[in-house]
Amino acid sequence: MKYFFKPESVALIGASTNPEKLGFKILKNLIEGGFKGKIYPVNPKGENILNLKCYKSISEIPYFVELAIIVVPAEFVCDIAEECGKKGVKGLIVISAGFKEIGEEGKKREEKLKEIIKKYGVRLIGPNCLGIIDTRNKLNASFAFEMPPEGKISFITQSGALGTAILDWAIKENVGLSKFVSFGNKADVNEIDLIEELKDDEDTNVILLYLEGVSEGRKLIEVARKTISKKPIIIVKAGKTESGAKSASSHTGSLAGSDIAFNSAVKQSGIIRANTVEELFDYALIFSYQPILKGNRIAIITNAGGPSVMAVDMIEEKGLLLSRFSEKTINLLKKYLPPVSSINNPVDILGDAKADRYEKAVEAVLSDENVDGIIVILTPQIVTQPYETAQSIVRTSKKYEKCVISCFMGGKRVEEGIKILKENGIPNYPTPERAVIALKGMDDYRRFRESNLKGRFIEFDVNKEKVREKIENLKRSKTKIIGDIEGREILFLYGINVVSSFIAKNEEECENFLKRNEGKFVMKLISPDIIHKTEAGGVKIGIKSPEEAKKAFKEIIDSARKYKPDAKIVGVQIQKMIEKGIEVIIGVSKDVQFGHLIMFGLGGIYVEILKDVSFRIAPLTDIDADEMVNEIKSAKILKGYRNIPECNTEKIKETILKISQLVCDFPEIKEMDINPLIVNERDAIAVDVRFVFEF
Amino acid sequence: MKYFFKPESVALIGASTNPEKLGFKILKNLIEGGFKGKIYPVNPKGENILNLKCYKSISEIPYFVELAIIVVPAEFVCDIAEECGKKGVKGLIVISAGFKEIGEEGKKREEKLKEIIKKYGVRLIGPNCLGIIDTRNKLNASFAFEMPPEGKISFITQSGALGTAILDWAIKENVGLSKFVSFGNKADVNEIDLIEELKDDEDTNVILLYLEGVSEGRKLIEVARKTISKKPIIIVKAGKTESGAKSASSHTGSLAGSDIAFNSAVKQSGIIRANTVEELFDYALIFSYQPILKGNRIAIITNAGGPSVMAVDMIEEKGLLLSRFSEKTINLLKKYLPPVSSINNPVDILGDAKADRYEKAVEAVLSDENVDGIIVILTPQIVTQPYETAQSIVRTSKKYEKCVISCFMGGKRVEEGIKILKENGIPNYPTPERAVIALKGMDDYRRFRESNLKGRFIEFDVNKEKVREKIENLKRSKTKIIGDIEGREILFLYGINVVSSFIAKNEEECENFLKRNEGKFVMKLISPDIIHKTEAGGVKIGIKSPEEAKKAFKEIIDSARKYKPDAKIVGVQIQKMIEKGIEVIIGVSKDVQFGHLIMFGLGGIYVEILKDVSFRIAPLTDIDADEMVNEIKSAKILKGYRNIPECNTEKIKETILKISQLVCDFPEIKEMDINPLIVNERDAIAVDVRFVFEF
Repeated sequence: MKYFFKPESVALIGASTNPEKLGFKILKNLIEGGFKGKIYPVNPKGENILNLKCYKSISEIPYFVELAIIVVPAEFVCDIAEECGKKGVKGLIVISAGFKEIGEEGKKREEKLKEIIKKYGVRLIGPNCLGIIDTRNKLNASFAFEMPPEGKISFITQSGALGTAILDWAIKENVGLSKFVSFGNKADVNEIDLIEELKDDEDTNVILLYLEGVSEGRKLIEVARKTISKKPIIIVKAGKTESGAKSASSHTGSLAGSDIAFNSAVKQSGIIRANTVEELFDYALIFSYQPILKGNRIAIITNAGGPSVMAVDMIEEKGLLLSRFSEKTINLLKKYLPPVSSINNPVDILGDAKADRYEKAVEAVLSDENVDGIIVILTPQIVTQPYETAQSIVRTSKKYEKCVISCFMGGKRVEEGIKILKENGIPNYPTPERAVIALKGMDDYRRFRESNLKGRFIEFDVNKEKVREKIENLKRSKTKIIGDIEGREILFLYGINVVSSFIAKNEEECENFLKRNEGKFVMKLISPDIIHKTEAGGVKIGIKSPEEAKKAFKEIIDSARKYKPDAKIVGVQIQKMIEKGIEVIIGVSKDVQFGHLIMFGLGGIYVEILKDVSFRIAPLTDIDADEMVNEIKSAKILKGYRNIPECNTEKIKETILKISQLVCDFPEIKEMDINPLIVNERDAIAVDVRFVFEF
Repeated sequence: MKYFFKPESVALIGASTNPEKLGFKILKNLIEGGFKGKIYPVNPKGENILNLKCYKSISEIPYFVELAIIVVPAEFVCDIAEECGKKGVKGLIVISAGFKEIGEEGKKREEKLKEIIKKYGVRLIGPNCLGIIDTRNKLNASFAFEMPPEGKISFITQSGALGTAILDWAIKENVGLSKFVSFGNKADVNEIDLIEELKDDEDTNVILLYLEGVSEGRKLIEVARKTISKKPIIIVKAGKTESGAKSASSHTGSLAGSDIAFNSAVKQSGIIRANTVEELFDYALIFSYQPILKGNRIAIITNAGGPSVMAVDMIEEKGLLLSRFSEKTINLLKKYLPPVSSINNPVDILGDAKADRYEKAVEAVLSDENVDGIIVILTPQIVTQPYETAQSIVRTSKKYEKCVISCFMGGKRVEEGIKILKENGIPNYPTPERAVIALKGMDDYRRFRESNLKGRFIEFDVNKEKVREKIENLKRSKTKIIGDIEGREILFLYGINVVSSFIAKNEEECENFLKRNEGKFVMKLISPDIIHKTEAGGVKIGIKSPEEAKKAFKEIIDSARKYKPDAKIVGVQIQKMIEKGIEVIIGVSKDVQFGHLIMFGLGGIYVEILKDVSFRIAPLTDIDADEMVNEIKSAKILKGYRNIPECNTEKIKETILKISQLVCDFPEIKEMDINPLIVNERDAIAVDVRFVFEF
């Protein structure tokens, strides 16, 4: 997609002489941005605009055109796109609105546009977008007001309007951007194409995204995981609450709104999710300008107690650590600082600290190998030197490859200092809390790269063919829902431990089954016409021997016949009695955007009332499964509680991973639940199970 | 305390000719601030300073001095305070540091200072503070750099350094303040005195507080409740996480850190707690400039989809409502807006909206009686008119007594608009989320005033005298811990339903008890020497008749004698067998700052593993008790779940309130637990109970 950011030549179709029109503004932006390639304005009248020769149509241009920007009214866009295709244009940016966003008519128009670009192999950004900016290549192919300063943050936005606000803000705050893309309706190029492009872009070190909807959920996770190893992706997503619970009847379905899926995707891909646009840029600054933390041990240097306590609060709340200084550092601090100073972390260098005291403290702390990152807090007291202190922080921080951020609090008195810090790549946060949250984002990224990214997709040895056969049969017989008996067979073929059972048609079969199997069994009548089995005398428990089984069969059948003489009797199910254990649930539902969503939680009240469940999108790595089991609050119960011994959580994880493999192998599985999966200190056994297919 | 804010005359002791010294800066601030009363600089040298006659000592001043500001070195402060006392000074502000904050020596000095002011009946702010500012009376008795603009927000801070940062910020952002008080070590005047003072101050409409520690917890709640009916109090408190769990062994103790107590205080008093200084001012602005919401129905007007979705997300998350417009409003919007606009809430007036379209939409929406507050969102698109739009919002909002806030997003392009908004009392928030959070703070305040403030402190008819007698006896016998039997007696005297029990000394007593009482009983051996009662054959259940009771007594005693022949046997407890129900816990622990903290939760896993509990500080209103029961996540279980019928939560609340009354009547109760209190559809019955006293 180089032709979007580094084209040799650009045609602007819909160029205008009227300064009020977009066709004029974009041309002006192209010229004033300093674009080095050729610019060809196109307009039916063919008058020269802004001293550039103007062509009546793109076909008239006698040279090769790599990128075309279209700003004509919507109804002409398709014809012009066709013309561009014929001309051999590589990339199209359609600024014009009037497509899918306006309803049925626009939707048809957008479909037609898609066909055209497909026919000619042209890539398209838009329609209904603000355009793109590449500060490095001096390309401003947008109707933004100004070119933002050059930097290494790339920003991709689904909302053009938000884009204008962000660009305006970036210019005021002097935040450097690399590439800016407003992708509008994403008829062709979407966030995934752009992430892939920016992954290898040397001018980009952080990718920011504003999203309203995800195009290809599962692919987003894959592409993001690849990108994360090189650079961070930070997303703010609007529409968290709108979708709510889905209509599906299973537990999974009723708890899984699409934001749950999105949040799982974020966890599995290492994307950092910002809650607000403010947070998006709080993260962007630290990632763009500071080296990645090597650990989570943070030091604080301050000239005021209050703000440092607030920082400590947030450090504890967010799970970061306060560094414990080495003896060397403590001695250095003792030597340099007044006796009343606090030399433990946070280092309080007192209200009368000038720049030199800050410098010595920062130097001592940065040199400590127990420190991964530092926050320098400053409040403007009487002798405080914000400007000189900023200079000293910049100077000292350059000597170490460590993450240094600041929190100069106040207004006019700290302005000059903050300016120096920003110009030299030290992000300044207006409150200690925002500084800590930025560090937390970076630490999450570090941890994901160090551990989660190493998660393996395990392939278990399963009998896939046999399951395929079964599902084919179901499809043929149009059976969309199956219960315990057939469901457990499928699980069994995927190596999942299921409660063993058998349907006996007569006394002899019962006898034989008990000869082959040891243990205690429960026997249950199977009849479509008898719902209340116990009432009908259709349940016998504690069966241990072939003789008992034989007798029980007879009694069950007799009793059922008496209860309802005309009932159809299928047989008697003999099922091993389940050992004691904790009931957990594994469920699967299907999200429109992300595919199979796997849920885990403890049964009963935990899932139904407390909604204490975890979700991940299939396929899962071993680390995903591990996190799933451990992130629920009631996970502690699985670790042993009072007289309940510790459960074998490895077996739960294995079951989750096998379910993940199963649903990936068979996309026709729409829902499934194992409820309960009984877990004890030895094993996890699937008891009741239900599948729903979509054929 | 009028003499602090509106003194007729002020002496500055420690005035200096050296512009670097605080004694000079403060004098300059007093003069330049425009203070109308008399100013008397005091300095041993007696040279004139800044054209003011200087006195060698305060006694030398031939006039009445109402307020004295002391900035001399710490070691001279006490002598000077004594001199001020003799002179008849009413208020003292001690700026000087070198007191309790520096350790033992300073602590002694502070104690001495306290004695002196007590002797003379002088009130004291400080020591170790920044001073005070009253913009209305033009009094700048501080060493802040500048006087902030006049306004109605008063700010009280325990940290002087944070104060300097806030003042500096307020000046830059042109945020108007009324009174600013840095109260330092609060040797005398503390946050409660100041809240009480500001409660009736006409120049203050919002009270902001930065706190690190609370002086008198219970009084804070009382004073705050009284203040809340007049104006909001917003607090940011540092030190949330530091204290952690307490050492006490009871459930309550182990879960109740002091931040839990503080958070309970916030809930019970209607104080709004800000998480950061940023949030503190986000709240301050809306409260200071906008009328209080009359309901929680919010409307959004926007020229961009993205930011309005973010606002809607936050509205849902925070439990506010999106207004449903009346037909009249919908018709008005249809008439005024282009056909593609979204006229449902949020009202999207499209990217090409100019000021006139904003004006019409704002007018239509504000006139709707289903709208309590509105957020106007603006992003700077091509034809957007931030300045004119701001003017139109100001104009329209003046016609209605409704809360109007804005979210103009961007940088330079929206700057002028934001300035107009701010100058006219429309708070502008940089992100939609911050705008919604501000509204949420206001709505919490509204709801507290409308409901919680009406909560009643119920006095139950109890046998206080009898309990006092019992506790006196315990005190005399130095019994600090009591268990079930004596504990239940105390509860019974306070009208709490306890499981009935009786200790029988012989077979006859058993027989008689069963003659008098109907039902099923459990009988338990009472012996200080036998811990494992069941092993010793000391427990019999299901006793229904006098004969059975008689027999059981004999068997228990025989069996115990066999088990441990030398054991001391007190008797056999006969206790009614408890009906089925849900086990809940009511616990009490004592917080150093706030006194008795009452805890409620479901028993077992809910309290031990999920820590799903609620807390309030005694005494509780009926509404507090109601909130306590309903705010735990597992409260839904009490509402009926599967085969468990709905519990009688009224009985739980009643028990909580009686416990509240009990611990308020007897401050010597250090801890107590009812664990479990069994609740079913009819009743709540205390089963096991434990008290710990401090005498």
